[in-house]
Amino acid sequence: MTATDAPFPEHLKPFAEQVDALRNIGRIFWRRGWSVGTSSNYSVVVNRDPVQLLVTASGKDKGRLTREDFVLVDANGNPILDGQPRSSAETLLHCVAAEDDNVGAVLHTHSVWSTVLSDRFAPQGGVLIEGFEMLKGLSNVTTHEHAEWLQIFDNTQDIPLLAKQVQAAMTSTENPLSHGYIIRRHGIYTWGQDLDEAYRQIEILEFLLECIGRAATMA
Amino acid sequence: MTATDAPFPEHLKPFAEQVDALRNIGRIFWRRGWSVGTSSNYSVVVNRDPVQLLVTASGKDKGRLTREDFVLVDANGNPILDGQPRSSAETLLHCVAAEDDNVGAVLHTHSVWSTVLSDRFAPQGGVLIEGFEMLKGLSNVTTHEHAEWLQIFDNTQDIPLLAKQVQAAMTSTENPLSHGYIIRRHGIYTWGQDLDEAYRQIEILEFLLECIGRAATMA
Amino acid sequence: MTATDAPFPEHLKPFAEQVDALRNIGRIFWRRGWSVGTSSNYSVVVNRDPVQLLVTASGKDKGRLTREDFVLVDANGNPILDGQPRSSAETLLHCVAAEDDNVGAVLHTHSVWSTVLSDRFAPQGGVLIEGFEMLKGLSNVTTHEHAEWLQIFDNTQDIPLLAKQVQAAMTSTENPLSHGYIIRRHGIYTWGQDLDEAYRQIEILEFLLECIGRAATMA
Amino acid sequence: MTATDAPFPEHLKPFAEQVDALRNIGRIFWRRGWSVGTSSNYSVVVNRDPVQLLVTASGKDKGRLTREDFVLVDANGNPILDGQPRSSAETLLHCVAAEDDNVGAVLHTHSVWSTVLSDRFAPQGGVLIEGFEMLKGLSNVTTHEHAEWLQIFDNTQDIPLLAKQVQAAMTSTENPLSHGYIIRRHGIYTWGQDLDEAYRQIEILEFLLECIGRAATMA
Repeated sequence: MTATDAPFPEHLKPFAEQVDALRNIGRIFWRRGWSVGTSSNYSVVVNRDPVQLLVTASGKDKGRLTREDFVLVDANGNPILDGQPRSSAETLLHCVAAEDDNVGAVLHTHSVWSTVLSDRFAPQGGVLIEGFEMLKGLSNVTTHEHAEWLQIFDNTQDIPLLAKQVQAAMTSTENPLSHGYIIRRHGIYTWGQDLDEAYRQIEILEFLLECIGRAATMA
Repeated sequence: MTATDAPFPEHLKPFAEQVDALRNIGRIFWRRGWSVGTSSNYSVVVNRDPVQLLVTASGKDKGRLTREDFVLVDANGNPILDGQPRSSAETLLHCVAAEDDNVGAVLHTHSVWSTVLSDRFAPQGGVLIEGFEMLKGLSNVTTHEHAEWLQIFDNTQDIPLLAKQVQAAMTSTENPLSHGYIIRRHGIYTWGQDLDEAYRQIEILEFLLECIGRAATMA
Repeated sequence: MTATDAPFPEHLKPFAEQVDALRNIGRIFWRRGWSVGTSSNYSVVVNRDPVQLLVTASGKDKGRLTREDFVLVDANGNPILDGQPRSSAETLLHCVAAEDDNVGAVLHTHSVWSTVLSDRFAPQGGVLIEGFEMLKGLSNVTTHEHAEWLQIFDNTQDIPLLAKQVQAAMTSTENPLSHGYIIRRHGIYTWGQDLDEAYRQIEILEFLLECIGRAATMA
Repeated sequence: MTATDAPFPEHLKPFAEQVDALRNIGRIFWRRGWSVGTSSNYSVVVNRDPVQLLVTASGKDKGRLTREDFVLVDANGNPILDGQPRSSAETLLHCVAAEDDNVGAVLHTHSVWSTVLSDRFAPQGGVLIEGFEMLKGLSNVTTHEHAEWLQIFDNTQDIPLLAKQVQAAMTSTENPLSHGYIIRRHGIYTWGQDLDEAYRQIEILEFLLECIGRAATMA
């Protein structure tokens, strides 16, 4: 059950570093229990104009991604080359996040705590996380006296519809999504300027959700 | 406490790949806490006509299976060669699953969450898992709006009796078992076309049971 | 924080295999969280007549035991050679277990679940574990319809006194300790014919205590 | 996501051993979930007169610290050399601990359990931990009949203010802090004569907090 280090497919050679970084993240998240089964998907923006993303292929075990388990797609989530594996069913959610010029990487995980809490807080429409020092690890947060609102979207198999809802929330003038969002009984989406930032933020959000979850188990 | 990579016994040489795949799965499941003590057993169908299975030997530590800890058995669970170690006490449950031509591998784990929930849901006769995105990782499930029913069988040391009950449930015309079942205070059985599918499904079922278990700890 | 593989001290060379096996167990238990800080101690009976044990030295980090962190002691827990490190403060509890000719190894762990449950069940004087398939992994248990009673002793720094209490309970004609016991807010003691058996049993007891603990967190 | 073993910067060569020991601790704590995101910071006193500390740089991933992620600071937390990365925002808390001649290392972790319990016990002003055998692993504690009081300080971004409060509590003539303290919704600070002692104590405090946390989840 380990991934073989086969040579890179020709069209992925320019993105060798990103591919191997995503594979490593997959191993870490799988070990943490955030990417089991074939859940989760990850992407990196590899070109800005026009937007092109490197996305994980659909249905792969994230704990042992091979160098062939990645797809190059355009801003609409369509493959930019023939002969690639099918990209993740949720590719459009990555594309929507990448519409923001400041987003260079998108990570979607599927942890037990985010799943359980998405259900618990669905009536409120989101999870409010405030007052934790750990929040300072999120980009542009400089004090623990910060209120992070993780909006919860209903799950659906109609990804284009969900993508529109997320897009509207991300570009809302009043209260735009800041660091991520949750899909009910499904998982978290986070993004960052680069993979390091997105990775850091997913660790932080998972930590904070676990704190809230464990606190809720105490009388 | 590490398994030595001794040469394969002669009669297992044709199944070297499957043996090492099962050993690797044992290490992963042991680390996850799903196969501690001498619990659990795994099998792969290595011949279809007549049916022959490669099954883990009885009483072995799954975290450090050696290449000698496997047995070749026939459709009735009897050894097809002399001089092999005794196969798992529950070999018949593997044979019953393998009666389905679409089943190529069977995995049985013994996790804390499945044990605890099997007790909690015994009065209902099963665990109902519905509405989770993770369900889509189960074979032939295409939407989170799926209701997975994990039937719970009472535990018994009379394995032939249990095998008959499971066989009846698997071949039920009304409501056949789909992806697995639970034995009360004992563990989960899952199967798949091949080892990858069975492995993926056990990860998914364990994840979902943990979600249900953790949700139940919240007021 | 890794243990260096220095050469064996001369007097431990005959027991090289046991020393390295105990070091490996230490790494496994530390990773599991059952032997953190300087808690826990392990022993192997290396001679039967007279009884001699190889015991972990006092105050060592079990995750990185070196080859010098072991002591040879006699049946009374006294060092059989000068110049050895001090043996664990609880050496006498190992000696008491080793009075049984069938005991070849003793493992003491210090897990969160055993600590928490020892407190919860102290009023009843022990933890009753029954009806779990996992019990069959304990020596001489052949059915899940087994009732394992893990007696709880009050903790004390008077180890000779505690050793006497344990000795009385182990040799009780009515209801002798079978596979282990708990010291309140302290941890588990288990033993076996050899290290493999003791190791298997500690995995099983820890699993079962976690089951009982998690079930208790559900309403 | 692994740290490269680049050569040591010239000014850190005298402290190569300490740097690599702290990097190893970072990996262990990150894996345990005590140092995720960019949380936590660690230090070692490398000179006593005048006091100089080797501190982790600000904002680094503790699971993959490089040899350049460390800063030499003086007793007031100011860099003793130009051209170093910025030291952790909480450097002053390390300096305050290092005012005690017996303190040679300071570790600050950020676990889920300490975060959750810091909130739960904030009204009492601290967490009382008593009666556990594990307490004996703390320095100068010789019996489980010990009452450890972990004072909880309110979190603030005004580190000089917090440092003064901690300093007052550490040097209190009535009831000085003994082995560590908690910052609310933030984490634990511990120290020791050397890194081994501080490391041991953080393992012990985390274990004990988990015991208290899990016990609190039971009815």
